[in-house]
Amino acid sequence: MSNDKVTSQDSPLSRFIAVIPAGGVGTRLWPLSRAAAPKFLHDLTGSGSTLLRATYDRLEPLAGNRVLVVTGVAHRAAVCRQLPEVQDGDLVLESEPKDSGAAIGLAAAILHQRDPDTIMGSFAADHVISPDGLFQDAVREAIHTAAAGKIVTIGIKPTHPSTGFGYIRSGNSLHIPGASSAQAVVEFVEKPDEDVAQQYVDSGEYVWNAGMFVAPVSLMLKHLEANQPELFNGLQEIAEAWDTPQRDEVTARIWPTLPKIAIDYAVAEPAAAAGDVAVVPGSFRWDDVGDFASVGRLNSAKEVDEVTVLGEGARVFTENASGVVVSDTKRVIALIGIKDVVIVDTPDALLVTTKQHSQRVKQAVDALKASGDTDVL
Amino acid sequence: MSNDKVTSQDSPLSRFIAVIPAGGVGTRLWPLSRAAAPKFLHDLTGSGSTLLRATYDRLEPLAGNRVLVVTGVAHRAAVCRQLPEVQDGDLVLESEPKDSGAAIGLAAAILHQRDPDTIMGSFAADHVISPDGLFQDAVREAIHTAAAGKIVTIGIKPTHPSTGFGYIRSGNSLHIPGASSAQAVVEFVEKPDEDVAQQYVDSGEYVWNAGMFVAPVSLMLKHLEANQPELFNGLQEIAEAWDTPQRDEVTARIWPTLPKIAIDYAVAEPAAAAGDVAVVPGSFRWDDVGDFASVGRLNSAKEVDEVTVLGEGARVFTENASGVVVSDTKRVIALIGIKDVVIVDTPDALLVTTKQHSQRVKQAVDALKASGDTDVL
Repeated sequence: MSNDKVTSQDSPLSRFIAVIPAGGVGTRLWPLSRAAAPKFLHDLTGSGSTLLRATYDRLEPLAGNRVLVVTGVAHRAAVCRQLPEVQDGDLVLESEPKDSGAAIGLAAAILHQRDPDTIMGSFAADHVISPDGLFQDAVREAIHTAAAGKIVTIGIKPTHPSTGFGYIRSGNSLHIPGASSAQAVVEFVEKPDEDVAQQYVDSGEYVWNAGMFVAPVSLMLKHLEANQPELFNGLQEIAEAWDTPQRDEVTARIWPTLPKIAIDYAVAEPAAAAGDVAVVPGSFRWDDVGDFASVGRLNSAKEVDEVTVLGEGARVFTENASGVVVSDTKRVIALIGIKDVVIVDTPDALLVTTKQHSQRVKQAVDALKASGDTDVL
Repeated sequence: MSNDKVTSQDSPLSRFIAVIPAGGVGTRLWPLSRAAAPKFLHDLTGSGSTLLRATYDRLEPLAGNRVLVVTGVAHRAAVCRQLPEVQDGDLVLESEPKDSGAAIGLAAAILHQRDPDTIMGSFAADHVISPDGLFQDAVREAIHTAAAGKIVTIGIKPTHPSTGFGYIRSGNSLHIPGASSAQAVVEFVEKPDEDVAQQYVDSGEYVWNAGMFVAPVSLMLKHLEANQPELFNGLQEIAEAWDTPQRDEVTARIWPTLPKIAIDYAVAEPAAAAGDVAVVPGSFRWDDVGDFASVGRLNSAKEVDEVTVLGEGARVFTENASGVVVSDTKRVIALIGIKDVVIVDTPDALLVTTKQHSQRVKQAVDALKASGDTDVL
């Protein structure tokens, strides 16, 4: 979209612009995912697309090329290779990580500066969703709901009592035209223990908080200003300079001074308390690819016997083995008599664990960091 | 020793020359051991020496530098790097593998040509033995026994009813001065099943056949000539040319025509039947390093938690893991929640198996061969 103004037309859908925050190292997917090559730059599903590219393609029917990407300055080249459609002014580069409040808030402020009627939708670059059609249906409902003056989260109907996600408690139906499933949000709740998670699922009132939302940028900024005035003022100053020759100078000066806060605390929860948040439950399949067990489940790539193999150059030989192999090399990998194994083979680091232990990869990375082996992190 | 004649002196020990057959790919130690870098060129014990070098050093107090090495032509440079002491004429290079009958027979024929009174001792380059003193004591007894006109195997007192080795049944004591433990050999027997192995161990009459023997070269050749006249004649022709300018020409012409037969069938078993074979039981620790479980047991290298780590550049991080890691790279290897694992990490191939399955590596290599992935074999 560059510097062209987006003209508001009759349908709220024409006001929609997608924001893709592309951050997060994905520590639990080490050594595949790491600071220099985070999760969103990998093809974790064997689809042939990176997660980032798949996210863009999923949004394209709704947003066209009206997409803003927020990422770390280190990933500029990689993101541009993945998304050649994205113009310079639509690539927000964080010189240092400032959490989601600043990242998404700046996107909102830039879009508001360009057109205050914009409805933004924020979708992380490293989630896996299918089928695209059901996702797009939910986003369309969310856009209609946002046009009625709501910050709209897209919740995921739980398939099991997960203790790994936060939940959203939904309330009354909002009866919004074009958004038949939109409901008020009663509250956001933190990750529950197993019993509580089971109660949530049984009640039918709760959906998973997948961190996806659609909202009028003006409403986003209203709550941001009320709750985080310092952050709001800084972002506003950057946004005013964004489409001018002063962009780099102002950003370089202001960004490092911004407070770090998650968008949940800066906007979503206070807005929910004020009755300004709605939820559209999505019935599509959603996975945040939190660990390698998840990579194994999601994968549509080749199976060698009972081993899921991910990686184009992979040359895997198995005998009486099962599990997941993620290969980032062209080495021959032979698995003999080993079950439910998770092997991640990269040029400078090798992980061998089991599906059951794949959540513990984060601790391993922390230990490597502590031991000074940071070259492979 | 080069081309100098070795003068026979009073003690049989002065007639001793060591032969080291350095062959065998060690398929069950793939991908560490392979055609281009066989087992004997690796340090599998964490001692800092390759198995070949350790074999030489173990024999040096007995043989000095009077050592003949038989190896494949492909390993010439590597063997010379490991054993700079070995002169050109004492390095027998096989242009193609011809089994142990030709390899050891040629060594015998060359040594006989130089001095018919020589007592040779043949010791594979890829076994692990300790302590050296007990081994040398056994070899000394074997030399005295050989001087009395015997082909003398050095058997290993079994520590358990192994089904992986052949056994030697020993008979009456031979009462040879300087060789108090030398006994007649009743018979060689093939690898037994478990019950039979247990009977062998219980009887106290059996020792493991470790393939080590000491013998007068003249007696070796006498039996070889009687049993394998074609092989004997070919070897004799090469041996006569060996220390002359015709060595290469004659060897290149004759070697490819030689029959393939194991020294056991060509010499040892017929000699045993003729009553010409004795055994000296060795009480040293002996291991033919048949698989990675064995590598783990033998290793005196560093332990990271419960993981035995082999490899100078290894950077291993473990959490709740046990097993063996053999690293031929400098990659970080992280093991999380995986037990009794065997990991062999080389630049172009990775093996992941368990201690229980480490004997099945050979089948994996066969399968890789069948699939055409021969570049890593």
